[in-house]
Amino acid sequence: MPRVRLDLAYDGTDFAGWAAQPGLRTCQGVLEQALATVVRRPVRVTVAGRTDAGVHASGQVAHVDLDEAPDPRLAHRLSSLVPERDLVVRSVAVAPEGFDARFSAVHRRYEYRIQTRVADPLARRTSAFVPRALDDAAMQRAADVLVGLHDFAAFCKPREGATTIRSLQSFTWQRQGDLLVATVQADAFCHSMVRSLVGACVAVGEGRLGLAEAAALLDADGRSSAFRMMAAAGLTLVEVGYPADAELAAQAERARARRTADDVTAAAGA
Amino acid sequence: MPRVRLDLAYDGTDFAGWAAQPGLRTCQGVLEQALATVVRRPVRVTVAGRTDAGVHASGQVAHVDLDEAPDPRLAHRLSSLVPERDLVVRSVAVAPEGFDARFSAVHRRYEYRIQTRVADPLARRTSAFVPRALDDAAMQRAADVLVGLHDFAAFCKPREGATTIRSLQSFTWQRQGDLLVATVQADAFCHSMVRSLVGACVAVGEGRLGLAEAAALLDADGRSSAFRMMAAAGLTLVEVGYPADAELAAQAERARARRTADDVTAAAGA
Repeated sequence: MPRVRLDLAYDGTDFAGWAAQPGLRTCQGVLEQALATVVRRPVRVTVAGRTDAGVHASGQVAHVDLDEAPDPRLAHRLSSLVPERDLVVRSVAVAPEGFDARFSAVHRRYEYRIQTRVADPLARRTSAFVPRALDDAAMQRAADVLVGLHDFAAFCKPREGATTIRSLQSFTWQRQGDLLVATVQADAFCHSMVRSLVGACVAVGEGRLGLAEAAALLDADGRSSAFRMMAAAGLTLVEVGYPADAELAAQAERARARRTADDVTAAAGA
Repeated sequence: MPRVRLDLAYDGTDFAGWAAQPGLRTCQGVLEQALATVVRRPVRVTVAGRTDAGVHASGQVAHVDLDEAPDPRLAHRLSSLVPERDLVVRSVAVAPEGFDARFSAVHRRYEYRIQTRVADPLARRTSAFVPRALDDAAMQRAADVLVGLHDFAAFCKPREGATTIRSLQSFTWQRQGDLLVATVQADAFCHSMVRSLVGACVAVGEGRLGLAEAAALLDADGRSSAFRMMAAAGLTLVEVGYPADAELAAQAERARARRTADDVTAAAGA
């Protein structure tokens, strides 16, 4: 049963998020329906980043276990089964040994786009709009303060049992005229974390929040009202990083060896 | 009666083009209605480039004659009267002496975006899609052949009495991964000219049209079937160029002097 890696892109505007929900149009629902049409049985896909309603992706990754190796034209066939053209399967390939789209991922990278001062109608589906000038140098200083291994409880929607400790690997702001683009990378993100991190930087860029106050958010043990969570439209998942194939295979081999040892121990204890 | 310059941007997807048409949503119609709401009388705007249905603009320019100098917040008020947010008045300013949005313009610059190989759902409203690789070096050679002062009859929808002789000032292709972007500048364009010029280059890039055949199109005296006119979605008006203010004023002064001389001649002849 070959495991197949799917590289995906979508315009999240008309999706109720990634995760399948009864009666709603979701990325997972649309993709699983297209796959079921092609392979003629129900299938379940596993994804690297479960994006929220309205969030986009240019570099999303998923996997699915199929009965046989995929036809080279599978990506095209799947995309053609989405007549709205707002979800595209960019490529399909047999996954390397030990690959899991979700658990193998070592980083996720997002971009957040903010159109400042004057709205850009051509960017309104893929950016937030702040009708003022923002101090992007101050925003970069705030981003620098937040980078590192921290408890991001102030930036996360609470979920039962889920950790809010994450390693924020990079957080940079770039200006292109009136457009500000944040690139944010972490091992993983808790729910609403990118949109909250960006909201905190915007509060600093507007002069409503000081740098010391932003830093103090890392000591908070729950959600903060010192900033707004930004709109979904500005957020795009651009990349998911994985170990090299040889490392994935070595990890799979180590896991197999552990299972065998556990079996031997269990058998000895029985 | 001050003449006012309006700088505009719009997403053309949901407009039936620039020009007002009864019963259709057009850029001119939406803008004139917003202006009428603010100044409380009907107004007529003059535009630099009458874009077709589905064509976008980031740098469109128009003018309107108002009874008094505009309030600094006029741009924002006009934009807020377009609830769909797909047309934005970027700025409003009293126009320099002698300014006419259409007749003062010395160049128009368009961009045409083509997503090649794999569709990009986030770009589908602002680019055409060609599901193949294109030879962009060959496309640049075709573009180089077309630059200059020529009769572009092969690239123009015929219009009674309108010239098809234009000065194509520049035509360059740039690759950004699978995205090809053409930048095309001329003194003015006849109807459908940019989309036809791009279509001819695509035919060359696909190997369906030779460079000599592309060059021979400049000798044709009517529309050609050697290439396809490209889709409206890929086209954006990005800039309209005008002479410096002092030159505009000097032109207006010379026109006034000519009219006075004509009046004297006419009076003498009477």
